[in-house]
Amino acid sequence: MNKKLGKQTIRFANGINILSYASIAGQKEGEGPLAKYYDKVLEDAEWGEDTWEKTESKMQKSAVSRAVEKAEIDIKDIEYLFAGDLLNQCISSTFGLRDFGVPFLGVYGACSTMAETLGLASSMIDGGFANTAVAVTSSHFCTAERQYRFPLEYGGQRPPTAQWTVTGSGSMVLTRQGNGPYITHFTAGKIIDAGVADANNMGAAMAPAAADTLATHFRDTEKIPQDYDLILTGDLGKVGKSIAIDLLAEEGFDMSENYNDCGCMVFDIDKQDMHAGGSGCGCGAITLCGYIMDMFRAEKIKNLLFVGTGALLSPTSTMQGESIPCVAHAIAISAKGE
Amino acid sequence: MNKKLGKQTIRFANGINILSYASIAGQKEGEGPLAKYYDKVLEDAEWGEDTWEKTESKMQKSAVSRAVEKAEIDIKDIEYLFAGDLLNQCISSTFGLRDFGVPFLGVYGACSTMAETLGLASSMIDGGFANTAVAVTSSHFCTAERQYRFPLEYGGQRPPTAQWTVTGSGSMVLTRQGNGPYITHFTAGKIIDAGVADANNMGAAMAPAAADTLATHFRDTEKIPQDYDLILTGDLGKVGKSIAIDLLAEEGFDMSENYNDCGCMVFDIDKQDMHAGGSGCGCGAITLCGYIMDMFRAEKIKNLLFVGTGALLSPTSTMQGESIPCVAHAIAISAKGE
Repeated sequence: MNKKLGKQTIRFANGINILSYASIAGQKEGEGPLAKYYDKVLEDAEWGEDTWEKTESKMQKSAVSRAVEKAEIDIKDIEYLFAGDLLNQCISSTFGLRDFGVPFLGVYGACSTMAETLGLASSMIDGGFANTAVAVTSSHFCTAERQYRFPLEYGGQRPPTAQWTVTGSGSMVLTRQGNGPYITHFTAGKIIDAGVADANNMGAAMAPAAADTLATHFRDTEKIPQDYDLILTGDLGKVGKSIAIDLLAEEGFDMSENYNDCGCMVFDIDKQDMHAGGSGCGCGAITLCGYIMDMFRAEKIKNLLFVGTGALLSPTSTMQGESIPCVAHAIAISAKGE
Repeated sequence: MNKKLGKQTIRFANGINILSYASIAGQKEGEGPLAKYYDKVLEDAEWGEDTWEKTESKMQKSAVSRAVEKAEIDIKDIEYLFAGDLLNQCISSTFGLRDFGVPFLGVYGACSTMAETLGLASSMIDGGFANTAVAVTSSHFCTAERQYRFPLEYGGQRPPTAQWTVTGSGSMVLTRQGNGPYITHFTAGKIIDAGVADANNMGAAMAPAAADTLATHFRDTEKIPQDYDLILTGDLGKVGKSIAIDLLAEEGFDMSENYNDCGCMVFDIDKQDMHAGGSGCGCGAITLCGYIMDMFRAEKIKNLLFVGTGALLSPTSTMQGESIPCVAHAIAISAKGE
């Protein structure tokens, strides 16, 4: 009965099969280094819709449809849709997925959402409650920018620590059985509030949560960073990435060799003038459900630790002088199960 | 291995034990008919905090602390906190629970959140991933009103179909073993959008989702409404309640005798001038985690079907001319397991 390692890590003994995955990316992401790994790159910010919110919903709907199509199953075979996004009341998910007729379990983990949905979907399958479940999330630069910061027309200047919200949606179809790759572990994170209050420096705010979950994962599983081909955080960006390396070093774990962050990979940061890098639920989602999973398929990655990183603030909490509580959830993926 | 009945209903064979519960209610709720069942009634809307959002966070924190205290366990024994609320980015939950140091899994199901958190927490326990988990949610009239509608100072008039967001927070501590009552079933709902676009008539928007989940639950479990002492929706209010009865009758299920809605119970609607009744995540939460669970303890209720009802819209989606997608999740609670 004991499926837990330590206090926070679930071990899925048989591994949860990743049957298929899909990613829809925005225009700017399509000009980045990982362009060829996306299922679709949009030509503009609207994709034929009259609001960006509707575009983002369409991206989630499309990411799910593509993954289901690639899995060669019917949408009616999906037993649970786990989904969430950054918009108020998660409307990208609720409007994007409303036509599928599949039991819907909404999640809010800010940019940790991809890891949270994967962890919960895997748990439902391993727990015996489903054979097939989908995890999906999205973000859109234009919807996030106007909700969290300023109207786009304002043309606000961004400090060097600011990140650029990725326009994209990624989804995975998970099943009880299959040929892998497999989700083998889920480490659910605690909320960590390191006292950072600068909403233009999310990387610094989120790094301590990422470090806490990573250190916990290594201790729970008795692994070290070198046991993974790649450790990948969701959207710490340049600033947060270097802080995370330092914080892990303090805990006795050396991540200097095999660690990267999706926010540093999704754009050519200097050439595309991306300041501290990419961010948003879509950042980790399209990197994982594009380049990374293709690398598994090409057998270039065999063991991955993916850590979704979320800043659990709102514009209201910032205006009320609050610091930024953060959370990070880790998912281990292996080509061969354990 | 088959823990599913039909396509949507999980059966927890051994029942998930409700070890303890707690409810914190606002001033107006404390003047309502269920006042004596709350653990605490606030004297004003602020509870010593300088913003209503901070008050709501404090309510969630307090609801969890009380339930944990009543369970005579330590907060560190909690393996997962499942939580969510109505505020943008779920800040009542993230700020309210950030100090507990417990793995946090954020959920967004609008007013269906209490049922969703209970269903997921129960699944994690039954799946073998935890012995102890907490489900919690909240709402606050003042935070919801200014976020979803108008500044309170504006003194906007409300149509007769409008509901009053309940100020309150309810939580439950769930464990693998104990003396009950027990959560025995979880029916996760699909998103149903019946085309209602009036954000002042949530009951009518949500009733079809409630009816879909209820009919599915009865078919999956081969039960009829009369198998339960009480069927209880979260916050359909007067308007939605009567629609739900009609919709279920069309499906062949008679709920005229043993069905009520928390939105119709939490206030003395006429005397307190509550229009169509109470609403919000807190509405179902404080009714369930107060009066209803006390009735279980007094052996006056032995079988309950609780259906959390959520309207998955946002002010942005309404301004963009969208209708209101809704979802309902059902939780069966029994004094004796099955």
